[in-house]
Amino acid sequence: MKIPFNKPYLTGKEFDYIQDAVNSKRLCGNGKYTQLCQDYLQQRYGFGKCLLTSSCTDALEMAAILLNIEPGDEVIMPSYTFVSTANAFVLRGAKIVFADSRPDHPGMDEDSIESLITPKTKAIVPVHYAGVACDMDVIMDLAAKYNLFVVEDAAQAIDSYYTGKDGIKRPLGSIGHLAAFSFHETKNIISGEGGMLAVNDKQFAHRAEIIWEKGTNRSAFYRGEVDKYGWVDVGSSFLPSEMVAAFLWAQLEALDNIQAMRKGIWERYYEGLKDWANSQGVGLPQIPDFATNNAHMFYLVGADGNQRNALLQQLKQQDIHAVFHYISLHSSAFYSQKHDGCNLSHSDRYSECLLRLPMFNDMDLTIQQQLFSALLK
Amino acid sequence: MKIPFNKPYLTGKEFDYIQDAVNSKRLCGNGKYTQLCQDYLQQRYGFGKCLLTSSCTDALEMAAILLNIEPGDEVIMPSYTFVSTANAFVLRGAKIVFADSRPDHPGMDEDSIESLITPKTKAIVPVHYAGVACDMDVIMDLAAKYNLFVVEDAAQAIDSYYTGKDGIKRPLGSIGHLAAFSFHETKNIISGEGGMLAVNDKQFAHRAEIIWEKGTNRSAFYRGEVDKYGWVDVGSSFLPSEMVAAFLWAQLEALDNIQAMRKGIWERYYEGLKDWANSQGVGLPQIPDFATNNAHMFYLVGADGNQRNALLQQLKQQDIHAVFHYISLHSSAFYSQKHDGCNLSHSDRYSECLLRLPMFNDMDLTIQQQLFSALLK
Repeated sequence: MKIPFNKPYLTGKEFDYIQDAVNSKRLCGNGKYTQLCQDYLQQRYGFGKCLLTSSCTDALEMAAILLNIEPGDEVIMPSYTFVSTANAFVLRGAKIVFADSRPDHPGMDEDSIESLITPKTKAIVPVHYAGVACDMDVIMDLAAKYNLFVVEDAAQAIDSYYTGKDGIKRPLGSIGHLAAFSFHETKNIISGEGGMLAVNDKQFAHRAEIIWEKGTNRSAFYRGEVDKYGWVDVGSSFLPSEMVAAFLWAQLEALDNIQAMRKGIWERYYEGLKDWANSQGVGLPQIPDFATNNAHMFYLVGADGNQRNALLQQLKQQDIHAVFHYISLHSSAFYSQKHDGCNLSHSDRYSECLLRLPMFNDMDLTIQQQLFSALLK
Repeated sequence: MKIPFNKPYLTGKEFDYIQDAVNSKRLCGNGKYTQLCQDYLQQRYGFGKCLLTSSCTDALEMAAILLNIEPGDEVIMPSYTFVSTANAFVLRGAKIVFADSRPDHPGMDEDSIESLITPKTKAIVPVHYAGVACDMDVIMDLAAKYNLFVVEDAAQAIDSYYTGKDGIKRPLGSIGHLAAFSFHETKNIISGEGGMLAVNDKQFAHRAEIIWEKGTNRSAFYRGEVDKYGWVDVGSSFLPSEMVAAFLWAQLEALDNIQAMRKGIWERYYEGLKDWANSQGVGLPQIPDFATNNAHMFYLVGADGNQRNALLQQLKQQDIHAVFHYISLHSSAFYSQKHDGCNLSHSDRYSECLLRLPMFNDMDLTIQQQLFSALLK
């Protein structure tokens, strides 16, 4: 493809840090670079305890284990999301209760949540689609009212914010009891595969570290708090290799620069397409007043599936790789039989009509102009 | 420490391949290097379908999911093993039934297994401790007789073999229905964190790929077998980053060389220590006739815990880092209440008396002689 959908971006420091990790003879997880990344993200965003993981999926699985999700428990989440949001809880035996998307945005419709809560509901998992905040005040108020936990699926939401009723602007991932981030190569900040759990509710901090370290108290052992370590809980090997953390550290150092590049690209997309979109009945991303835009993604919403597919085709003919996104999970082969049948029409509409345009950090004006020509012709 | 316990070894090609992976703009999992590693191991050892994972723990978890382990199922494994052997099955709700170690070897006592089998038993998980084979004929015969599955925990067992009654020498990891390997930095072949599942029983091959790819049929989609991919099963993100696979590929290319180095070190240990060990009542590793030695580990077995601890101390005073190994899982904080109370005295003895000597690929004669002086004085 002349214009790929994604292109992993390098800051130039990645190899130096990988080499340093290797030279220090520490390649397994929880070494110097893991610490650097975790400390940086905790301090920059005021997250609770941060633990790097091999993927955002892993971070969500840690959350499900920490919440003691078990068969019979219900977990509410949008249907318009990646399978891992659901699988992490399905693996613990949960029943997934799917909520619809907002009319104006693929994110979960906060007003639809309360009617889905039952005595079996244990958690709400808002997904900040495209890095744009869900209305967290509504969600946290419901959680308080019904004694539920909130796990933010912040896979796409690094460096994005939510401003609540109190006027305070809070980083996404710092609001729920737990939050999961992704550093997959398609995200703003990358490490190939990679993720992180932010443990904002202190009651989970100690156990999170144990679950992360294969159900052992090895972290306490390293700190000299116990004289040998052993099996104390369930858990898995959620730690990434130090070379993955070293790569990530190079990216985090360049975070402001990366964000500036992406926001420039996003703005040019918006300005370059708004008149055309308006004339064609094509929707552009909308950012609610309470949210910021971290420029993770630029998408179009066709008036219908035919228009979306025609646009995809039109771009493909010009060798430009645009893609559709999630297929509503409630209609998947795996879950459609288990779904309660309630109508999730906005979720289905985004499945049918949404199209993601190429987005990578070093996408320059020339590339975007080729793309405009292909679309606007 | 003057002599560390472990030192990750580099072949010199690791960075070239990581750089190549990055230059090819493919950093997430299941890329070129993942394929190279998987194909190589399939071909060299005749394993069934191989899938790289982020850790051996992940590979064991995939096995537990593939076997549909559920609450009430029983899984038999040695107590003298790493927590992940057990946790992978505990996460699916299994009851773990612990077997004792052999009198002459920390590996599971094959003769004790049959009495542990009940109508609820679903799988046997032999652990090839120190890369030395369990008696797989006995185990596979029991599995056939009682209709059980066998998952080889081959974490330490790369490039090691078992010769059965039929006289055929088979690679460890190719015999059970499924097998899990580790490439953790302490293993013979490393990638920092890392692992692999070998799917030898063809009935699991298709589903293994789906579980590996987050419960989706994405692999089939990439092969052009379906026109879009979706949620078809449970699963997780078990794939490592391509940079991890690229690192591993450099190691696999040097496998014969690495094995030759380790075997040389192991033999020098054995020759250098056998008379002293004999005179002190210290046990050295024993390799049963049906097994080979892949030189993963060199260990001593003290006559009692006091002797073991004194030896550890003696080495520490000379700045040499030797370590003890597993604490019997049946006596762990997490599982002791759940254990049926049966006596596992050999497992406990190895917990108390076993000591691992430093072992790394470029350990030269000078280093080993310092170690001998420290031990034999």
